[in-house]
Formats: sequence, C-alpha cells, structure tokens
Amino acid sequence: MATHSPGSGTRQAVYLGDRNIIVRDGVTAAPGRSEVRIDVAYTGICGTDLHIVHGAMDQRVTMPAVIGHEMSGRIVEVGPGVAGWAVGEPVTVMPLVWCGQCPACQRGHNHICHRLNFLGIDSAGSMQSSWTVPVDVLVRLPPALSLRDAALVEPTAVAVHDVRRGQVVAGERVVVVGGGPVGLLVAMAARAVGADVMVLEIDEHRRLVGASLGLTVLDPASAGLIAMVDEWTMAAGADVAFEVSGSAAGITMATHVLGVRGRLVMVAIHSAPREVDLFRVFWRELTVLGARVYERPDFDTAVQLLSTGDILVGPLVSQVVPIDDVTEAFTVLEAGRAMKILIDCQAG
Amino acid sequence: MATHSPGSGTRQAVYLGDRNIIVRDGVTAAPGRSEVRIDVAYTGICGTDLHIVHGAMDQRVTMPAVIGHEMSGRIVEVGPGVAGWAVGEPVTVMPLVWCGQCPACQRGHNHICHRLNFLGIDSAGSMQSSWTVPVDVLVRLPPALSLRDAALVEPTAVAVHDVRRGQVVAGERVVVVGGGPVGLLVAMAARAVGADVMVLEIDEHRRLVGASLGLTVLDPASAGLIAMVDEWTMAAGADVAFEVSGSAAGITMATHVLGVRGRLVMVAIHSAPREVDLFRVFWRELTVLGARVYERPDFDTAVQLLSTGDILVGPLVSQVVPIDDVTEAFTVLEAGRAMKILIDCQAG
Repeated sequence: MATHSPGSGTRQAVYLGDRNIIVRDGVTAAPGRSEVRIDVAYTGICGTDLHIVHGAMDQRVTMPAVIGHEMSGRIVEVGPGVAGWAVGEPVTVMPLVWCGQCPACQRGHNHICHRLNFLGIDSAGSMQSSWTVPVDVLVRLPPALSLRDAALVEPTAVAVHDVRRGQVVAGERVVVVGGGPVGLLVAMAARAVGADVMVLEIDEHRRLVGASLGLTVLDPASAGLIAMVDEWTMAAGADVAFEVSGSAAGITMATHVLGVRGRLVMVAIHSAPREVDLFRVFWRELTVLGARVYERPDFDTAVQLLSTGDILVGPLVSQVVPIDDVTEAFTVLEAGRAMKILIDCQAG
Repeated sequence: MATHSPGSGTRQAVYLGDRNIIVRDGVTAAPGRSEVRIDVAYTGICGTDLHIVHGAMDQRVTMPAVIGHEMSGRIVEVGPGVAGWAVGEPVTVMPLVWCGQCPACQRGHNHICHRLNFLGIDSAGSMQSSWTVPVDVLVRLPPALSLRDAALVEPTAVAVHDVRRGQVVAGERVVVVGGGPVGLLVAMAARAVGADVMVLEIDEHRRLVGASLGLTVLDPASAGLIAMVDEWTMAAGADVAFEVSGSAAGITMATHVLGVRGRLVMVAIHSAPREVDLFRVFWRELTVLGARVYERPDFDTAVQLLSTGDILVGPLVSQVVPIDDVTEAFTVLEAGRAMKILIDCQAG
C-alpha cells in the first residue's frame, strides 16, 4: 500500500486579506500524476498582485492565498506520468489552466476560458520557494537565458500578445501610452516587429528607464504633443495605440493620436466603466481591441525575444529582494518608487 | 461668346438655423463640366437631418442650407464631359466627395477623407425638386426598382457597410440593439449574409414593424433577456452586436450580450463621450469597431439587396409627404411617431 507523500517545506508569501501579506513556512504537495515540483528562483510582483493585496480581487481569491505568477525556476521533482521533463531543467510557467469544455475553449480561445484557473490568483502561485504545478503549464527555457531575466517571460508574453492583437507590422507608427514595465515591454515588442514607436509617460524616472532601452519616451503633458505626433505621422495619425496607463486621460490620449482605421489595444485593466470618445471611434473608423493575457505562441516568442536580446529586461528591474522582505517590497511598489521588483524565492 | 446658363427653378427645404426649416423657391445651377442635374423623386429624412435642424451641427453647416442626402430621381440634364449617363435614367447618389490627397484618401479610405464634402451637410443636398451634382457620385438604378424604394438605397448602404465592418458570416448569431430604420436595415443586411439575428427595441410599434419584416424583435426590458441570449447562443454569447440605439443603455447591452472575441459595431453616433465597460472588453477580448457611412461596393450591394427583395423597405416608410409639408414631417419625426418619412420632391 502506497504511503501518502508528505510534501516539501516551502517559504511562502501569503495574502490574508485586509491588505495583509505575510511570509511564513508552509508545505507544497508532492507532485501527483502529470505534475512537477519546481524550486522557484525568482517571482516578479505584478500590478495584479498589488490589486489582490489592495483587496480589489477578494471576491475571486480564496484566502489565505499564495500569490505570484511571473516566475522562473528549476524542476526538482517529477510526478508519475510526466515525460519529456527532467529534474534540473530551467523552466517558467504559463499560469493558465483551462477547462477545455466551455464555449471559449471549444472555439480555441483557451486563454479566455469561462472557468479559467489562473495560478497565483485562483489557486496557489509562485511567490514561494517550492511550487507544484501541472506539467502542461511548463515552458522550457534555453540554458543561456538567466533565471533573473526569465522571470520576465510572463509579462513579456503579455506584451507580445498585445502587439499580436494589434496586428502591428513593420514600418507602422505606434504610440504606447504608459511607460511602466508592461508599457516598455509592449514598446520593445512592437519595435521588434519593425514598428516606429513613441512612448508617453508622465513619470520622469520611467522616461529615463525607457530612454536607456533606446526608446523614444515623451511627457504627454508637454506642449505641442499632438502637433508632434502629426508631424511624425505626416498628418496621418498613428497606426496603433496601446493604452497601458490605466487612466481616463490615457484612453483619451490613445484615441486622439490615432489615424483613420487606427487600432487601439486596451492593455491596462479598467475596473470601472470609463468614458470613451465614441465619436472619434466613429469618425476615424477606429478599432478598439481588448487583449487578455496570452496564448502559447506568445510565450514561445517572448522566450525567443529575451534570448536574442531584442527585448532587454535588465533595466526594468529596480530591485531584487529576498522573500522575507515581501511586505516591504509591496510598500515600495505602492509608493510608485519602483518599476519591477523581483522576489528571490531561495534567499532566506 | 457663351452666355451664362441661368439654372433651373427648384422647390427647396432650407434650414435657416434656430430650429427653423422652411420651404421656398430657389435656383439650381445648370450642370457644369462633369455634372448632371437630377429631378429628385424622393428624399428620406435621416437622423442626421434631425440633428442639423436641432442645431447640433451648426458649426459644420453653412446656412441657409438645403439638406437631404437619401434620394432617388432621374437625370434631366447632362453637362459637358459627361459620358455614359443619359437623360431619363433613374439614379441615386452616394453623397460623398473626397479630396484624393489627404492621408485617408491616400490609404484608400476615401469615405473617411479628412476634407470630406458630404452633400446635404457640407454642401447643398437633395431635399429639393432639382439638384445638380458631380457625375462621380451617381449610382445607377435598375429600372425594375421603384424610385420610392430606391430612396432607401443610401441608408441600406450604411447597413451593408456596418455588416461588412463586423465581418458577419453565415451562421453567426447577431444582436442588433435598436430597431429604428437603420437598426432594421442592419438586421436585414445581416440576415441576407446568413446570420441568425435578434433585434432589441423598446418601442412597441417599431417591434411590430420589425416583426412584419420577419425579424425576431424583443423588448430589452423584458425579464430574462440575458438568459434568453444565453440559451440562444448555447452559453457562448453573441458573435456580433450592433449598437444602433444611440443610448448609454444600448452600449451596455451590446457589450454584455457578446461572447469571447465578439465584435461590437458602433453604428449610432454618440456625440458626447460615453461610459464603456472596458473590463468586459478586456475580459472577453472584444473588438469594438467604428463604422462611418459606406464605400462604393456597399452601394452596389445595397441596390442588389433591394432589387432582389432580400431587403424590404416598404414597411419602414411611415409616410410620404409633399415637399411643402417638410416642417410638419420634422415635427412628426421629433415626436417619435414615425419610422422613415419620404419627401415627395415633385409634389407641389
């Protein structure tokens, strides 16, 4: 008779509700059939993690909740029925588990599954030293890609998906409204397909980070911005705009820089209904595209772009902090004093 | 030495500003080079004409203004350099004159020309007995199509364009929010490509008109509507929605009936910014498409659909009134007591 596997110790960041996130010791289950256990190297803190800790997703999250979904690590244990994956392999995770049965899945849009299980939101995430996941979510990493950079594969896949939704092609003029981590990744992903990119960002530090990545980053409050866009696009307006600021002003800006038949990709999540200039949408026959997470090919492209250096993520990382300092890391992020913070999940 | 042609007498409906529309005698210029003069048979009153008379477009319209752009008639005089058109031919007009030089025209989107001259808004329209237009705007009518039905080619072309923007294909489930003349034309145009169509309309009389055209028309206020859409679409949500109501509630309804990757075509003109549930746009990866007027192929399709009877416009016409009764016709329309009113431009 088989004995029940005891699982492994894990150091976890746990959201308890009421803006409380603590670090404590817990247990990660031993990998069952078609599962693997990963020693997590790094987990990035995402805007969604901030939303969770702010209580904005309490209806969806079951507390106590181990959050986190931007990660890199190595396989340390392989469950029964797992083929093609070996202990020691570097991996990241595409943190989506879909039902395969709902109308969205049946139409091939698994990433918008009606019963989506998003690891790190709907079930335990990667902000812990040891994490057991279904083998289907694994994404192979090339050995040459550092685990630190690889922790940004997931947000890079978001950016790749956004650019694909916007059908950006070489030579097009693209405006990215908002120069936080995702905005700059979108800008680099658009540049990687050959677009001519302009980023608009109100924060001076973020503008400098963007500039260090070779991007053109302007202050949207600067005088004559619309005239500048007009000159840049030879009066045609931009081909594609990405709204990554999450602000009402960002939507207005993104709508107004676009030319005839321009595409506006909604990247930021606007929880409350927002006013949209639908007259402009009508007048220039704009297309507004919702974009949510990613599909498998976006992860493959993201890994490739990070490996070739077409997308550089080093400058996006403001700090790397040991897991025991998670609470302080959230405080720094809330105060807007950082771009991306990585949690070192093995540092005690 | 050539004498200057004196032009022809014309009975015209003229917008003077301040909600004032009168009927008076005027002069239509004799057709110059590449122009023709038309005896207008019928001109329909469009929502845009109502907007003009309400003063909403005073910044754009030069008063006194002869309005009207949904028409049918016969060529009565042909200017120099006109080939291929003969006196007596039945015609309608695609009332757009574009510059050919601006970025929109250069990209082949003439109908969104930055300097568009919309006949009946930016220059003299068809609500008169005699109208001189450039030959390029003429659209040939089959002799079997009655001039009364042909007066609805223009709004039918709007509907055809909307359905084309929405890329509706056979078998798709389509919701049309708003069952006025354009809404019902959109519904019939979608049905003509093989879609399964549901119209939502709050006004009982308009629901009855829709039903007389063989359409399924429901009251959006009826209990269990969303559940009904769910059952109809087997829980998938609709493939395409058309917002033709012009109301805030209509936008919310159209957004909420759509399934994953659904397309929302904005047909109604929303002059003021409107709140849009961008979370839903993100969550289901919706596409919102602005649609403005039409392109030439839309007119060709519209003429064909009216000729074959795939689109029936008879029931949409509430009244046909002589041009001298234009003022009363606007009053009836304002009061919401009619669908489409046609002006008989030859009746004294």
